[in-house]
Amino acid sequence: MFQINENYLKLQGSYLFSTIAAKIRAYSELHPDKEIIRLGIGDVTLPLAPAVISALHGAVDEMAVQETFRGYAPDLGYEFLRSAICTNDFRSRGADIAVDEIFISDGAKSDSGNIGDIFSVNNRVAICDPVYPVYLDSNVMDGRAGDYVPETERYSKVIYMPCTEYNGFVPELPKEQPDMIYLCFPNNPTGMIISKADLQKWVDYAREVGAVIIYDAAYEAYITEEGVAHTIYECDGAKECAIELRSFSKNAGFTGTRLGYTVVPKQLKCGDVSLNALWARRHGTKFNGTAYIIQRAGEAVYSEAGKKETAEQVAYYMRNASYIRTSLLDAGYTVYGGVNAPYIWLKTPHGMTSWEFFDYLLEGANVVGTPGSGFGPSGEGFFRLTAFGSYENTKEAVERICRM
Amino acid sequence: MFQINENYLKLQGSYLFSTIAAKIRAYSELHPDKEIIRLGIGDVTLPLAPAVISALHGAVDEMAVQETFRGYAPDLGYEFLRSAICTNDFRSRGADIAVDEIFISDGAKSDSGNIGDIFSVNNRVAICDPVYPVYLDSNVMDGRAGDYVPETERYSKVIYMPCTEYNGFVPELPKEQPDMIYLCFPNNPTGMIISKADLQKWVDYAREVGAVIIYDAAYEAYITEEGVAHTIYECDGAKECAIELRSFSKNAGFTGTRLGYTVVPKQLKCGDVSLNALWARRHGTKFNGTAYIIQRAGEAVYSEAGKKETAEQVAYYMRNASYIRTSLLDAGYTVYGGVNAPYIWLKTPHGMTSWEFFDYLLEGANVVGTPGSGFGPSGEGFFRLTAFGSYENTKEAVERICRM
Repeated sequence: MFQINENYLKLQGSYLFSTIAAKIRAYSELHPDKEIIRLGIGDVTLPLAPAVISALHGAVDEMAVQETFRGYAPDLGYEFLRSAICTNDFRSRGADIAVDEIFISDGAKSDSGNIGDIFSVNNRVAICDPVYPVYLDSNVMDGRAGDYVPETERYSKVIYMPCTEYNGFVPELPKEQPDMIYLCFPNNPTGMIISKADLQKWVDYAREVGAVIIYDAAYEAYITEEGVAHTIYECDGAKECAIELRSFSKNAGFTGTRLGYTVVPKQLKCGDVSLNALWARRHGTKFNGTAYIIQRAGEAVYSEAGKKETAEQVAYYMRNASYIRTSLLDAGYTVYGGVNAPYIWLKTPHGMTSWEFFDYLLEGANVVGTPGSGFGPSGEGFFRLTAFGSYENTKEAVERICRM
Repeated sequence: MFQINENYLKLQGSYLFSTIAAKIRAYSELHPDKEIIRLGIGDVTLPLAPAVISALHGAVDEMAVQETFRGYAPDLGYEFLRSAICTNDFRSRGADIAVDEIFISDGAKSDSGNIGDIFSVNNRVAICDPVYPVYLDSNVMDGRAGDYVPETERYSKVIYMPCTEYNGFVPELPKEQPDMIYLCFPNNPTGMIISKADLQKWVDYAREVGAVIIYDAAYEAYITEEGVAHTIYECDGAKECAIELRSFSKNAGFTGTRLGYTVVPKQLKCGDVSLNALWARRHGTKFNGTAYIIQRAGEAVYSEAGKKETAEQVAYYMRNASYIRTSLLDAGYTVYGGVNAPYIWLKTPHGMTSWEFFDYLLEGANVVGTPGSGFGPSGEGFFRLTAFGSYENTKEAVERICRM
């Protein structure tokens, strides 16, 4: 009799956003007249930029004609897109990343879930707490997390790095030695950043202990302050210890268009084995490239018009972030994030739990956010609001919250 | 120090098609004047159907406007596409598959590589020999294959099911008991089919021994003969033992557009655990849906115009298949396939090995095919030609081969 991957049975509950969706569905069925505003899931709302739309139409036209039709894409992605990424995201920042160190994919969620494939199941994993659930859940599935211990709300083999008010939401170097370290800055869910100097300490630490850093820079476009690295490869030695995940979802609104990439430097090795070669093999065996038309859309993000238009979108969302942040501060809430990220990390009032506050907001203001405890035990007592709504909806939602 | 997934080191050589590409590149550099015709990799050449192009443009326009813009897709895929699939691919065949048993993906290669995620690494895997390399390589990566034994050219734990001239390229029930059985009909690479009655025997066998069948029906659109199942769910009891993989690559030319789906029936269980729920969890955690515009393109394949236009494409390729088959038969070659599949499985002449014949064709006719031995040891002495070229190129290539 065939057996399943028993690690799946160790997963706790269903995926956070599925649970939230079910709660909203139940509430809406009971209160069909209520207009719910969603500041929960990190989904964008502005349409794709004109430069991107134009590139999509152009690429679709190419697919209609035999001479310009495109079949299977190159394994790593088209050169035109990888070159644009290289120049704009790395060389412009002084980071010496080569075109064949960039792997185009259908998004950073797939990559952050699949990257574990090339690593031993015996590696010890360190994650921030709170954290984007995919890092934890994919490691549970892969068998690296150990058993879930209900008393501690933690998995037995995972090294949790609390990010709290006390450390300014920047993790401290762990006491136990990890093999794989997941970092995400600007951070989801807290919206907080790490200084370049502090990130350098992580790179130095990883090299010292022989750990690999999986660095998620999906929110890089939202950095507004100086002294913050836009890519981990701005740090000395990062090419020997770090993989970087990037997304087009938040900087260009591709959540429903699906495009991302992963950087695996050739200097990153385990003994003689290059991780770049391993990831290339994974990419070539279990993936068949991203649609040509989508890769052309990605290229357009780096055109002059594309840069200008997507920067305006980011600015639009950051105006929302600023509005949420300042209004809630004025109303007496304790608020973090929202300066270099589209996320606001709100301290729940009156000692409410995160889920209590979720219900309180859903029922009292018909506003949906994300309970901080859904991101890990240290997220308890916090709540994530996102800035991806329309300005009108965001304003209305915040006014409703402030009236409560 | 972090460790890699050591199973990757057990992989043999690089992926078949990468090796072929390297050989072509080397030959072209030495002989830049030679016009090479590729009947090797299974990539289509006809442009996307007008109905598909029209749907793509329409969906792109929707993404340009806030009111119709789409962000994250539903985890399983959009209902409009899953419904069209349900009606056209299953209910029309008398197969009672529900909408929530269908999972939209970015293609059957990803699904066939990733499906192993939900199964125990201790399962014994049975594959046909020759076989689509992804089934084997992904199981090597997952740790189910054991060690490679150079003397036998086989992995120690894999159950190989030879498909040869002696059994008409239909595998026999294995002597050792497998837990997971990979089947693909119409077959890649042999181009041969299994009768519905024989497929029923596999379903009965799987249920008897408690095995799960991973059934790849990517070439279903090429079936021309009666008595062949278009989906495994035409067989009694298949919903209790089979997962089916489907692709838009070959029936609608989506190799560079990326769309596929996997059927995981809710009746398929391991004890109390539903595999449908496990795959849903994998899909929701390590994947974030297929682009909206691509799903609309898929829907258009099932429109009246789309069905007609894609059927014409299939007929075009099958004219090529028929031309290759009859010409090579006339020239004295022993030829299989090409009747219910776009693949011709050619017996190499004069006892040449598959790679000898590859070089012989590349150098003598400037025609590229795929060496049968690249698909497994029982593929030695065979050679795969594909019917996906233009008619003119196909004719020219076959004439060159016949002149040799």
